[in-house]
Amino acid sequence: MQHNFHDMYRSHNCGELRSSHINNTVTLAGWVQKVRDKGFVVWIDLRDRYGITQLIFDEERTSKSILEQAQKLGREFVIQVEGTVIERASKNPNIETGDIEILVSKLTVLNEAILPPFTIENQTDGGAELRMKYRYLDIRRDPVKNNLIFRHKVAQEVRNYLSKQGFIEVETPYLIKSTPEGARDFVVPSRMNPGQFYALPQSPQTFKQLLMVGGMDKYFQIVKCFRDEDLRADRQPEFTQIDCEMAFVEQEDVLNAFEGLTRHLLKVINDVTVDKFPRMTFDEAIKRYGNDKPDIRFGMEFGELNAVSQHKDFNVFNSAELVVGIAVPGGNSFTRKEIDKLTDWIKRPQIGALGMVYCRCNEDGTFKSSVDKFYDQEDLSKWAELTGANKGDLICVLSGDTNKVRSQLSALRMELADRLGLRDPKVFAPLWVIDFPLLEWDEETERYHAMHHPFTSPKPGQLEMLDTDPGSVKANAYDLVLNGNEIGGGSIRIHDKETQSLMFDHLGFTKEEAKAQFGFLMNAFEYGAPPHGGIAFGLDRLVAILGGQETIRDFIAFPKNNSGRDVMIDAPSPVDNEQLSELSLKLNLKA
Amino acid sequence: MQHNFHDMYRSHNCGELRSSHINNTVTLAGWVQKVRDKGFVVWIDLRDRYGITQLIFDEERTSKSILEQAQKLGREFVIQVEGTVIERASKNPNIETGDIEILVSKLTVLNEAILPPFTIENQTDGGAELRMKYRYLDIRRDPVKNNLIFRHKVAQEVRNYLSKQGFIEVETPYLIKSTPEGARDFVVPSRMNPGQFYALPQSPQTFKQLLMVGGMDKYFQIVKCFRDEDLRADRQPEFTQIDCEMAFVEQEDVLNAFEGLTRHLLKVINDVTVDKFPRMTFDEAIKRYGNDKPDIRFGMEFGELNAVSQHKDFNVFNSAELVVGIAVPGGNSFTRKEIDKLTDWIKRPQIGALGMVYCRCNEDGTFKSSVDKFYDQEDLSKWAELTGANKGDLICVLSGDTNKVRSQLSALRMELADRLGLRDPKVFAPLWVIDFPLLEWDEETERYHAMHHPFTSPKPGQLEMLDTDPGSVKANAYDLVLNGNEIGGGSIRIHDKETQSLMFDHLGFTKEEAKAQFGFLMNAFEYGAPPHGGIAFGLDRLVAILGGQETIRDFIAFPKNNSGRDVMIDAPSPVDNEQLSELSLKLNLKA
Repeated sequence: MQHNFHDMYRSHNCGELRSSHINNTVTLAGWVQKVRDKGFVVWIDLRDRYGITQLIFDEERTSKSILEQAQKLGREFVIQVEGTVIERASKNPNIETGDIEILVSKLTVLNEAILPPFTIENQTDGGAELRMKYRYLDIRRDPVKNNLIFRHKVAQEVRNYLSKQGFIEVETPYLIKSTPEGARDFVVPSRMNPGQFYALPQSPQTFKQLLMVGGMDKYFQIVKCFRDEDLRADRQPEFTQIDCEMAFVEQEDVLNAFEGLTRHLLKVINDVTVDKFPRMTFDEAIKRYGNDKPDIRFGMEFGELNAVSQHKDFNVFNSAELVVGIAVPGGNSFTRKEIDKLTDWIKRPQIGALGMVYCRCNEDGTFKSSVDKFYDQEDLSKWAELTGANKGDLICVLSGDTNKVRSQLSALRMELADRLGLRDPKVFAPLWVIDFPLLEWDEETERYHAMHHPFTSPKPGQLEMLDTDPGSVKANAYDLVLNGNEIGGGSIRIHDKETQSLMFDHLGFTKEEAKAQFGFLMNAFEYGAPPHGGIAFGLDRLVAILGGQETIRDFIAFPKNNSGRDVMIDAPSPVDNEQLSELSLKLNLKA
Repeated sequence: MQHNFHDMYRSHNCGELRSSHINNTVTLAGWVQKVRDKGFVVWIDLRDRYGITQLIFDEERTSKSILEQAQKLGREFVIQVEGTVIERASKNPNIETGDIEILVSKLTVLNEAILPPFTIENQTDGGAELRMKYRYLDIRRDPVKNNLIFRHKVAQEVRNYLSKQGFIEVETPYLIKSTPEGARDFVVPSRMNPGQFYALPQSPQTFKQLLMVGGMDKYFQIVKCFRDEDLRADRQPEFTQIDCEMAFVEQEDVLNAFEGLTRHLLKVINDVTVDKFPRMTFDEAIKRYGNDKPDIRFGMEFGELNAVSQHKDFNVFNSAELVVGIAVPGGNSFTRKEIDKLTDWIKRPQIGALGMVYCRCNEDGTFKSSVDKFYDQEDLSKWAELTGANKGDLICVLSGDTNKVRSQLSALRMELADRLGLRDPKVFAPLWVIDFPLLEWDEETERYHAMHHPFTSPKPGQLEMLDTDPGSVKANAYDLVLNGNEIGGGSIRIHDKETQSLMFDHLGFTKEEAKAQFGFLMNAFEYGAPPHGGIAFGLDRLVAILGGQETIRDFIAFPKNNSGRDVMIDAPSPVDNEQLSELSLKLNLKA
């Protein structure tokens, strides 16, 4: 990267001076990171985005007034200095400018600073709330600053890669139409159209499909999307998608195109080479990992034990729909107390298991289980076989209703992998999960919902099953999973009006509702829609994972808290009545 | 650009086959642009994003069933064909694939199409409203499609150039805080915080300043912004900015950095080389062109004629604050009728002049004016001198209140330049307009407003004049003008709390209001804010001008109409009462 620092305030930045600059006269500007005042000599660490350069002021070589001025500087003062690059007496090999320092001949305070509410250091003493409130100070810290620069780099790579592949970035509108399907929309009252509202997009889904109808062929956009959801941990009401769509493609084309993108990112961002990504059906992922976004960096695959555990008198297992276990590598070393704690962990309401059966795999080939009363060594050896347990492992077995128990065991598997250090952030294991169900049953509304969205096409030949066995219909839908996180998901879309209309029927839309909400899309399908499909990546999550972290908030410049508030600017906030009246609105607060 | 078309539906696109492909078997997919049916032979133009390829079906070489199938195809049907590339009997030099055609051996209709409401041709029969309603069909047309691709190219160049210069693209939030300063905000009710609202950003102004406080040093973002304004022609409620900010800079640094960007764009996008951009003060621009965004591709500069026109008995001039004229090159050829029409034009209410005095500059060196009763040849020769009129020109003179008459004459100057073809879209004349006033008087509210925004810094040493002569204070504010359009504007910001607080005082904010709305920014200034400044470009306008056009709507994929409506998706629209109730809102419609 070329930087031009021959601007008015500085000749160089704080990260670029080296031995080769010795004897040069330079001007630097930045923040006072640290002052070390020995009385006769003062050292100051001057910081900017690019690094830290040491300044030196001493009795012998610095004028008295400047030395005194330096002694009065506080942390985070903004200063400009002129001076000569000299060799350091004691070099610091930990920073790139560690061979030199600046003997200062002129010092200007550009702005003073009061004491920051937390230390501007890599390890800060500031808590999460405080750092959010003063996010502009938090961004001065390397970990946050570097995350934002990292995000920029990833976004640039995405744009350049997709552009080279012939994708066109098209900006779709933010003020669109509210549709009750999917999550809740944020709405925007229209002053010019009283009583009417725009909605902020949950995704540019329909617009990208219209671009395909419009012949744009290959589209992408890095775009903000909005969901008014009750926020779970690490969700944001506004988030960024890499939104993509292609015409004249089948699933294979989309998978290849975006496997290419992901492989490129892993290579240039992480210097990791990954071959062909493995693929797994949704059903298989659920069966083997209890989860549709399995982390395959490690094993601990599910072994189903019904056949080898329901032939004895143990009623807990006999009455269970599913008995399923995992082998924890080296888990035999867990103490009884540790195992009890693990059992407590899965019994927490968030997980909700009723209990856990375990079986130690001793080094001598024998087994010792918590249910030895019911099972003999031969039984237990079959458990070991089906869970892939070796000597020294611990088999953990849960039982109950299939869906619940899978999800509980999946949580346990992830928790154990974390504890055992099996989730190495430097290892990347992408996986395509394919053949998702088209519909999922919603207990609350007692009807089927589109699992992906209502524009997803069913697998060829399965349309008929919509009437007889809707839950079994598979979709041309796929997720890209990376290290146990869904980083992207997409589908081949419906592109003809009849199928789309049929889908809306099955999703419980009346003809009128479908027309009011998606009429423009169904109309568009009458004018020659090409076969098309696409994918959307969650950029926040993708960047966090590539950055070796799992918390997206650390990769967002100005995130909101779990109540959807920006605590720095204090938003949302009340607006005055005049403004509401202009919008033809009144507050309707519950008492 | 590399395109990979070895996907499921096609081996090549419709723009890439050449003589070198003759005898290859290929698969293409696209839209039926045109069917020419001679009975024994059918030609079809097959279109996709990349071009048009001719298909041929004939009695001799095509099976009867396929020929008949081809004869039934309608315009905009989506088809897939397999066939052999053959040499065309009569080549078409106008298209890149004009040397070849495809002898079709297999034809699949991928989707039928009903008759489009307008022709999908470069010159269409569709009116503006109809094309907006069916924008997805309009995008199939080359002019619109190419504009969108052009826009993508410009945005990519901007991102790559700024990234290379060390700028970091940082995404700032869309759900922010409402501030009554500036234009009207769009607001977003918060369900989780009843009675409270987010606002959509009019620009990321405060966030980019906070990023400077946070040490990001060089920031940019291509970002949607929102203004709830009564829409003038060619304004959009949502628009796109290239938003930029730099720390440790003075005005000169910002001008140089973004002159570099603009020069780069002109070079790579338009292949136009421009040297150092000229600079002009705001006062000079107003005096010479009556306008703060003068088009300097042509002359017709203002000549102020008070001294040579107010010494006679012509009361219209004598009572005027300003008498000012321009010389219209070759304007002596205008007939009396044409001049009368011009006079009618400037008397239209939109312009509002009371009349126009003219003076013909004859080829023989004599003058003939509409006010010969009052002025002799010597007077008129001075008018010619001051307006720079040559033989064969026409001098047009307006008089009245200075501000009004300048704006009227500026409109006349632009209109005449259009009529005379002096505004060549292939010529690019950038200009920096600098030294804008800090404040402007608002007649309606009877107070001063920030001309740029309340964060703009006054010129050094002029702070004191805020009390004595606020209207004369100049700001460190600048606009980049291209061909008579403001394409960018910015300023050096205030970076200390005291000056910012003083500015809010002068803008009529109480301390409480300033704190409630901008407290977070003024707080931030206490923790070591660096000197900083920036600029924002209107991407829609920039792209249109680089594309040789002036209407931004043609460069936006899905624009809104003048009532802020998206007529394609029919937004905004009513939402149901349940949704309003969740948002703690009620409609308050006027009867």
